[in-house]
Amino acid sequence: MSKARNWSAIKLLALDFDGVMTDNRVLVDQEGREAVLCHRGDGLGIGMLKKAGIEVVVISMEPNPVVSARCRKLKIDCIQKCEEKLRALQQIAAARGLKPRDMAFVGNDVNDLECLRWVGLPIAVADAEPEVRKAAVYVTRRPGGYGAVREVAEKILEA
Amino acid sequence: MSKARNWSAIKLLALDFDGVMTDNRVLVDQEGREAVLCHRGDGLGIGMLKKAGIEVVVISMEPNPVVSARCRKLKIDCIQKCEEKLRALQQIAAARGLKPRDMAFVGNDVNDLECLRWVGLPIAVADAEPEVRKAAVYVTRRPGGYGAVREVAEKILEA
Amino acid sequence: MSKARNWSAIKLLALDFDGVMTDNRVLVDQEGREAVLCHRGDGLGIGMLKKAGIEVVVISMEPNPVVSARCRKLKIDCIQKCEEKLRALQQIAAARGLKPRDMAFVGNDVNDLECLRWVGLPIAVADAEPEVRKAAVYVTRRPGGYGAVREVAEKILEA
Amino acid sequence: MSKARNWSAIKLLALDFDGVMTDNRVLVDQEGREAVLCHRGDGLGIGMLKKAGIEVVVISMEPNPVVSARCRKLKIDCIQKCEEKLRALQQIAAARGLKPRDMAFVGNDVNDLECLRWVGLPIAVADAEPEVRKAAVYVTRRPGGYGAVREVAEKILEA
Repeated sequence: MSKARNWSAIKLLALDFDGVMTDNRVLVDQEGREAVLCHRGDGLGIGMLKKAGIEVVVISMEPNPVVSARCRKLKIDCIQKCEEKLRALQQIAAARGLKPRDMAFVGNDVNDLECLRWVGLPIAVADAEPEVRKAAVYVTRRPGGYGAVREVAEKILEA
Repeated sequence: MSKARNWSAIKLLALDFDGVMTDNRVLVDQEGREAVLCHRGDGLGIGMLKKAGIEVVVISMEPNPVVSARCRKLKIDCIQKCEEKLRALQQIAAARGLKPRDMAFVGNDVNDLECLRWVGLPIAVADAEPEVRKAAVYVTRRPGGYGAVREVAEKILEA
Repeated sequence: MSKARNWSAIKLLALDFDGVMTDNRVLVDQEGREAVLCHRGDGLGIGMLKKAGIEVVVISMEPNPVVSARCRKLKIDCIQKCEEKLRALQQIAAARGLKPRDMAFVGNDVNDLECLRWVGLPIAVADAEPEVRKAAVYVTRRPGGYGAVREVAEKILEA
Repeated sequence: MSKARNWSAIKLLALDFDGVMTDNRVLVDQEGREAVLCHRGDGLGIGMLKKAGIEVVVISMEPNPVVSARCRKLKIDCIQKCEEKLRALQQIAAARGLKPRDMAFVGNDVNDLECLRWVGLPIAVADAEPEVRKAAVYVTRRPGGYGAVREVAEKILEA
């Protein structure tokens, strides 16, 4: 992996949802309705990024509306029920005239590998699958759902 | 325990629900409605197994509909409110022409012991009761509800 | 504390609710409705005690109906919104002709101290307040809400 | 930081909500409704403070009604959706004729820094952001949502 940790180049931060914005667990009730545990510090970090002019988007395969519900609160774009994450990410890039080197992606599981290999700054959460950690140039200290996104936001803003 | 860890023979994976697909905790609200915390990585692992032609079923004594709600989402068969788990497992085997050696069972508590002793590949989650861990030929590294089922899925698929 | 760990004498197990049957946390929603995380293994342990003829009761100061909702599921008596826990426990004893030496009480916080000092077998969960642990003759290995009650049930049944 | 740990001077305890009264996580459901995990021991500690004549208030930037729902249960004042926390705190002080040295503030994140620098007794929870811990004269042993407020209450009452 010869990618550099070029935090200062980042213009867009793309995030997987489950396992990155959450601890990868889902609360399921008797009717099959779902809920997830998100992190207020992540929300604060995303707010800071947006204020600094860095866009944040979520790309998720999960069809449950809990994904978009969280993104609405954070006022960030969300592509969910996404069968091909890399294609979605490339469309986002094309629409904004961005190159892979302008983008960071944070993932936790094997369905994030294509996106991680494509962006300039691939990031894995602390508790990502081993294969995902290997594909990343930076592994967060904090696990998904416990401030991993906040940590990434601070790294980008410090740069 | 002279059973071998014959992962490659497995054609059907049977799972207890609470403590295996969850962390054995249940959220109870003011009206007594229940909800449980499941793991997206387990869901992904079960999807991989099904794609590889390995059937996954849940066998649970718990009467609460939260069990079947989760199984509906994962599109796997579910026998719940099950007074005699071993009999249920044997009926599943008979209906499919499977032998004990074709089957793995993942459990966490003493009401899983009969099934564990019957199948060819008995598995306990990391935080199972001591007696259950003793009855298993493999104990997962991850606790129930935190990716134990995903770990089992990977072991089966690697074999 | 000269009380002996006389597990075999126990005819009734009295439990505080929050912090004993739960991890002392409460989920609060936008309307102030509450929910708590209980443990399936505790439920199984309580079922074993009842089958062995040992009664289980919950005594709680908490007014929220989540307490009785959980006890209904477990089919155990529940005295909640209880201003004077010791008096409630003494009434339970009197109604059944039981002496303090026939009873165990499991607590986690300072409002359990009176009951703990009265019963023959005072028990604290692993994460109880220091003063409560000092008043106990047995401190569980497991924290409240993570199988502490199951552990107590097994100790009583082994005796 | 030359502020002393003058616990005995405290007449009012001001608390941030998320990350102090909770573990900084938020449960989000399919409709975007939120719920948070609070701690019964914190509630008990706040009750003890009130009984001892020490006022407790919550000051939060979070707009979600879950904040005020929890405060209603605890019967404490709550200023939420608060854009300028320090100004709110100063108004609270002025209305009661209190000086900064009469007040403690417990925070966890950077939006608490102004309040922490203003009060006589600035406190950070164990898992607060590094900058926040540095601004505090006392860092709790317990993390937010796991009894940090109870710990603060005991320190104030012992003094």
